[in-house]
Amino acid sequence: MFHLYIGHKNYSSWSLRPWLLMKHFGIPFAETVVAVSGKGANASHRGYSDNGLVPCLHDDNFRVWDTIAICEYLAEQYPEMWPADRQARARARSICAEMHSGFGALRSQLPMNVRLRAQGVAPSPEVAADVARIIAIWRNAREIAATLNIAGDYLFGEFSIADAMYAPVIWRLYCYGLALPDDAQAYVNTMLAHPAMREWEAAALAETTRLPFDKLVDQFGGARV
Amino acid sequence: MFHLYIGHKNYSSWSLRPWLLMKHFGIPFAETVVAVSGKGANASHRGYSDNGLVPCLHDDNFRVWDTIAICEYLAEQYPEMWPADRQARARARSICAEMHSGFGALRSQLPMNVRLRAQGVAPSPEVAADVARIIAIWRNAREIAATLNIAGDYLFGEFSIADAMYAPVIWRLYCYGLALPDDAQAYVNTMLAHPAMREWEAAALAETTRLPFDKLVDQFGGARV
Ligand SMILES: N[C@@H](CCC(=O)N[C@@H](CS)C(=O)NCC(=O)O)C(=O)O
Ligand SMILES: N[C@@H](CCC(=O)N[C@@H](CS)C(=O)NCC(=O)O)C(=O)O
Repeated sequence: MFHLYIGHKNYSSWSLRPWLLMKHFGIPFAETVVAVSGKGANASHRGYSDNGLVPCLHDDNFRVWDTIAICEYLAEQYPEMWPADRQARARARSICAEMHSGFGALRSQLPMNVRLRAQGVAPSPEVAADVARIIAIWRNAREIAATLNIAGDYLFGEFSIADAMYAPVIWRLYCYGLALPDDAQAYVNTMLAHPAMREWEAAALAETTRLPFDKLVDQFGGARV
Repeated sequence: MFHLYIGHKNYSSWSLRPWLLMKHFGIPFAETVVAVSGKGANASHRGYSDNGLVPCLHDDNFRVWDTIAICEYLAEQYPEMWPADRQARARARSICAEMHSGFGALRSQLPMNVRLRAQGVAPSPEVAADVARIIAIWRNAREIAATLNIAGDYLFGEFSIADAMYAPVIWRLYCYGLALPDDAQAYVNTMLAHPAMREWEAAALAETTRLPFDKLVDQFGGARV
């Protein structure tokens, strides 16, 4: 029996990734939502997550922590979570790992807040560089899918771990109302229409817990759903 | 034909990881050393590495960037790079991913500098917490190896990607002369005796390029090999 420990859906970008992956592939799991402070490894989480962070997946009593490790653990049982082509799979892993340790400006300056509906936020030069890199990454993935003749509107055609890893970026681009080129906007729309993304959004909107991150909503004049 | 792009051996902690892994498993590769600035994603590296960082592995003309993706790419061809037991493998991946995105204090306050021989550096509370967590991680890995009756002195018995991922920590603990409990010190000694770690050290000492990171050597009174 799988049990996923996650943060609140309005705020916890890392939690969204394995949650969405498991929902997409129809894997049953229980979930427990816990409050995150936003200050990194946190003693209050160590009871269910060895690194003091969420997400953490329990497979019965065995704990798998960190998003990358959770995804690889699941992919050993569901190999269709990665692209079938060896080079496409390697590329998917490169861009997932790049997300795992990069994009600091985007992540810190435009934190995920699913309820937020800011319009036309002007990104700082660092955020603009992060977004430009993400657009290039997505374009390259779509080119690989086209070269391999794989059908489907996700990054490598069919939905994969790569889409789950970039899912919080979708909320950021959408909630801050950043302007995008057509191909990137089309992919954002594809992801926003994913039933599990809609389910996550509905759950985020239904949350009554407000964490200090909500000062953002004030900063943008209270713009929200 | 594999070609690995790396930073200077005295300084580039990420580069050490796949280099050591490939050496340990006897995989032939060419290498090119490039200068890193220490400021993160760098336009000057984009010609050979899409994320602007080293290490980057070229498999003929196909590029695999980011340490985690390089290790997984190689492990598809050399499955013995991960522990054979499914849970041990999951744990190895958790601790590799934790290293990939964590330990910021240790990494920024005690940067790798292979030549440095500081003695008894007093770690800040944040560095001490990182080191305590690493000691716990290593202990847990050794317990798993013992439970599974796997012989060998590496983290999960036989040398795996996990040892490669923690290899720069070995140089940090050694070069700053941090005091360690016996079990952690024994593992540090095992890793320092690895022929490929000795080869990396010799190459680092033979480097004539001095990068600005060497202000550290001054800070510790010029202590060096
Ligand atoms: N590298 C980790 C990052 C996870 C992470 O940073 N989680 C945040 C929430 S999104 C957390 O648990 N923070 C603890 C806290 O702030 O209390 C992963 O990939 O899972
Ligand atoms: N997440 C990357 C980190 C790689 C990284 O930070 N590399 C540094 C050198 S150790 C770099 O290339 N920096 C570019 C520069 O500072 O010029 C990985 O796992 O490979």
